[in-house]
Amino acid sequence: MKNLLAAARGEAPSDLVIKGGRIANVLSLEYEEADIAVKDGIIVGIGEGYNGIEEVDADGNVLMPGMIDGHLHIESTMLAPATFAGAVVPLGTTTIMPDPHEIANTCGLPGIEFMWRESLRTPLDAYFAAPSCVPASPFETPYQEIETLKMMECYDRGWCTHMGEMMNFPGVIAGDEEIWGKITTARGLVKTAHLPNVTGRDLCTYLISGCNGDHESNFADEAREKLRRGIWVMIREGATEHNLEDVAQILLEDEARYARCMAVSDDLTASHILFNGHMDHKVRLLIDMGIRPLIAAALVTINPAQYFRLWDRGAIAPGMLADIVMVPSLEECRAMKVWKRGVLVADDGNPLFKAFAPMTIDLPQTSAANIRLTPDSLKVRAEEGAKIRVIEALPGKVLTNELTLDPLVVDGHVESDRERDILKMVVVEKNQGTGRIAIGFVKGFGLKKGAIASSVAHDAHNYIAVAADDRSMLTALQYLIDNHGGLVTTQGEEVSASLPLPIGGLMSNLDAPSLSKALLRMIKSAEDLGTEIRQPFMALSFLSLSVIPELKLTDKGYVDLAKGGIQTLFVRE
Amino acid sequence: MKNLLAAARGEAPSDLVIKGGRIANVLSLEYEEADIAVKDGIIVGIGEGYNGIEEVDADGNVLMPGMIDGHLHIESTMLAPATFAGAVVPLGTTTIMPDPHEIANTCGLPGIEFMWRESLRTPLDAYFAAPSCVPASPFETPYQEIETLKMMECYDRGWCTHMGEMMNFPGVIAGDEEIWGKITTARGLVKTAHLPNVTGRDLCTYLISGCNGDHESNFADEAREKLRRGIWVMIREGATEHNLEDVAQILLEDEARYARCMAVSDDLTASHILFNGHMDHKVRLLIDMGIRPLIAAALVTINPAQYFRLWDRGAIAPGMLADIVMVPSLEECRAMKVWKRGVLVADDGNPLFKAFAPMTIDLPQTSAANIRLTPDSLKVRAEEGAKIRVIEALPGKVLTNELTLDPLVVDGHVESDRERDILKMVVVEKNQGTGRIAIGFVKGFGLKKGAIASSVAHDAHNYIAVAADDRSMLTALQYLIDNHGGLVTTQGEEVSASLPLPIGGLMSNLDAPSLSKALLRMIKSAEDLGTEIRQPFMALSFLSLSVIPELKLTDKGYVDLAKGGIQTLFVRE
Repeated sequence: MKNLLAAARGEAPSDLVIKGGRIANVLSLEYEEADIAVKDGIIVGIGEGYNGIEEVDADGNVLMPGMIDGHLHIESTMLAPATFAGAVVPLGTTTIMPDPHEIANTCGLPGIEFMWRESLRTPLDAYFAAPSCVPASPFETPYQEIETLKMMECYDRGWCTHMGEMMNFPGVIAGDEEIWGKITTARGLVKTAHLPNVTGRDLCTYLISGCNGDHESNFADEAREKLRRGIWVMIREGATEHNLEDVAQILLEDEARYARCMAVSDDLTASHILFNGHMDHKVRLLIDMGIRPLIAAALVTINPAQYFRLWDRGAIAPGMLADIVMVPSLEECRAMKVWKRGVLVADDGNPLFKAFAPMTIDLPQTSAANIRLTPDSLKVRAEEGAKIRVIEALPGKVLTNELTLDPLVVDGHVESDRERDILKMVVVEKNQGTGRIAIGFVKGFGLKKGAIASSVAHDAHNYIAVAADDRSMLTALQYLIDNHGGLVTTQGEEVSASLPLPIGGLMSNLDAPSLSKALLRMIKSAEDLGTEIRQPFMALSFLSLSVIPELKLTDKGYVDLAKGGIQTLFVRE
Repeated sequence: MKNLLAAARGEAPSDLVIKGGRIANVLSLEYEEADIAVKDGIIVGIGEGYNGIEEVDADGNVLMPGMIDGHLHIESTMLAPATFAGAVVPLGTTTIMPDPHEIANTCGLPGIEFMWRESLRTPLDAYFAAPSCVPASPFETPYQEIETLKMMECYDRGWCTHMGEMMNFPGVIAGDEEIWGKITTARGLVKTAHLPNVTGRDLCTYLISGCNGDHESNFADEAREKLRRGIWVMIREGATEHNLEDVAQILLEDEARYARCMAVSDDLTASHILFNGHMDHKVRLLIDMGIRPLIAAALVTINPAQYFRLWDRGAIAPGMLADIVMVPSLEECRAMKVWKRGVLVADDGNPLFKAFAPMTIDLPQTSAANIRLTPDSLKVRAEEGAKIRVIEALPGKVLTNELTLDPLVVDGHVESDRERDILKMVVVEKNQGTGRIAIGFVKGFGLKKGAIASSVAHDAHNYIAVAADDRSMLTALQYLIDNHGGLVTTQGEEVSASLPLPIGGLMSNLDAPSLSKALLRMIKSAEDLGTEIRQPFMALSFLSLSVIPELKLTDKGYVDLAKGGIQTLFVRE
């Protein structure tokens, strides 16, 4: 403190003085031509005449506060925390608020601790949400249930600072005891919401919970109603969910509403980050649609800081962390230099820190490695005169349809029907290592040969596979078992292409450019097997997502929550 | 919680439904025609179709959130907490953030506890600041020093929720150990500032402390600079400090800056409240000067709530307290009805609650009652050939000048010189009951006869008197000693007029209208003694305020902080 004050008074040199820049002041909403003095990672002065041990000439460029992503799932990128930091810090992101919901499903509390511990090894401050909905439904099998006491452990041990998106809005509204236990024990913390199309009286009832940061608005009307009711509107722009242009209309209607809004990512991919950017991308999009640049900047800096009560950041102001990004202009928001706590951590788009390989030794190595599958495991004995339920995958959607079709029966068993594109799909329970197998059928993948399989399968992330034949499927599943997860394509006994995801079956050790290339190779390989679906592995990953209607396949079999739960494979009409 | 949810879902009646109003939505900055359902003091629904055990027709009037005063000193009004509530709740104020700085000087921690305990007996939520500067200077004698450990006791015992205005900015900037002890132990709490004309490098240095809510801006330039540097700008409009119209210019320049601004009172008087209002007055002033009405409303509702982290109030939204004010319009912001936690507490300007007489038994009864003064106590032996320092009181200002003048000597003693208006003034130390007497002289009061005396004398609030003759002065001081304080005018042995202030020598038991009348009577009586000063008791109360230059009189004698401290009465040239 004495050091800070001496530098602030100008009686001692600062560690760093950035001179000659234009500060994007997100508090007074002005540009300011002033120097920034930094000592011990803290901004101690703004003005003129400071001396620094190091002095940098900003040469008329704009200096903005380090950017903050208020909601995202690191796992969606398949990047590890360190490689994620390697990808986004050079884009000007200095703080993130990740919800480790996915790894909590596959690895439980050790997974959450792992994400937290790995993040500490990077210059990217990560404040984690305690996942509030693991399992996402009673028909999923996570590594362990994250109930109230486990969430409290996350807070008490410092892994999590706030409550993750409370997705079970029917439970909140109905007054479910367990859900309210989670809400009540998060008293005093920021609690975030998940309210897709929840409006009117349901919205009001839900808000008694105090869970008041929501990223699920698709349209301006929905966002405006949520804002009125007290929600901080998280304007989402992710790799597949593009809500920004619609939702930010509420700011074009009345700019002053920005005070309780912020931009967030939710789900990203490595290639989306590489080709579009991260929070910088959102700033550019907001400005392009007509939002005032300084307001756009506030939506990714001071506003998420205020909502998450991170009083030490979000603006370039004395006493705040020296998280500073140099850009040519807000309109052309592309980071030239990034300082984190006063240390230059990225220059011209390149990280100046090492993206360490993760220490996966901290993760529970699932007993799934002991699962033994045989050709018989995959057989389905036909029922005389019965039809089968088939999931219809809808291109580019999380939603599915249910079809009832005649099965292809060979030697008394139901087999993949390549002619009619009714392919066998399998889910193998891996989180608890039981090896329990559920078998269903899917239409829409169009594989002519081989199999594709993945250990990314929302929300429980068991092993999932779709195949044109049993032999290929067995090879694919065995690959996942032997490699603790990954993405794989097979033909017969051969692995065609593979991408290991050794971290919880969800994340790779590759950096963003390598991962992006590897994913493209995987998609290409799937296309070689005949699929015309655009993102075959992403489509596959949603076929287990039991919380979304209609028919899905979990390790417990077909599930349709709209119909109340488990559904049989065979149907008699 | 189950009750709330059932009412929210519409499955059980609410306690109260306010129908047919126009909600002033300070979140989305819109008016909304919607009903408000309230259960157990909480807003559970906004919309239509709610049934209430009680239903109120708002008849097209505007419903705004209960108003919040982010900074004030209750003691300045001379009203007790309960009578203060009786005065401002009917005006639509439902939450205040008082700094009990004055009573902390006269009664120490028991005084702070008293204010807190008395406030609990009213429908006005009061969240107190822990006074950070008692004594205000080393030359003042408070009842006890409020050092770091005593401030911590205020937090720990629940009396105070945040740190009061840190006035000692030189100490903060210099890194004074004791000051920084206070700052450091308030870690995690809101810390407020006091930065009159502190700018540039000093401002930056001060802000490392994290004390970031300031009400001392007099002009737009000052406020704009503070906003830039991270300060929440408290736009002050008090009984004598009228800063609103100047400071709120920063909002006319750019409305979106409202996000980190609020309106506050600081110091009020009973008559100011009666004739102008409280926060409603500020809303009207803001709108009159061209601020958008919904933004003006935000400055007295959601914004102070956000700054002080009162997440449960500041807007009419589900889950928030049902603190609701009905007004004809924001432009004509005059409360017709006021609900606090869903209970109607004021109707048509009248409180529906009893303003209890305070339980002063909790206050330390100062041993000042044992002080015995004699005519000799007031005598000043003249020094041959020496001149005397004289305070020049400047009409309507807290500032003073120092004069050096020839004394009027009678029988070897310096006496009040009515001809030249050089009057004797006396300060009697009462907080610790030592009876220590300091004597000085003042020009500007113009008393032709008699004395005026007061127990309100910033910041230590010892007994202070100015007199045309010693006999009147003795009578006046003896009145204060016998009555534990008050305001008094005397002539010879007669008390001309008096107003007891039995609560810490600062506050009356009267309600606002009676007090206002009594104060007018006191001023009239002082004018009868010949003074032409406009607010003689207020002018008197500032003559001890040692933190403000130039010359002041405390119980330790003349003080001029600009000259380094104690000054002698006599001067030889």
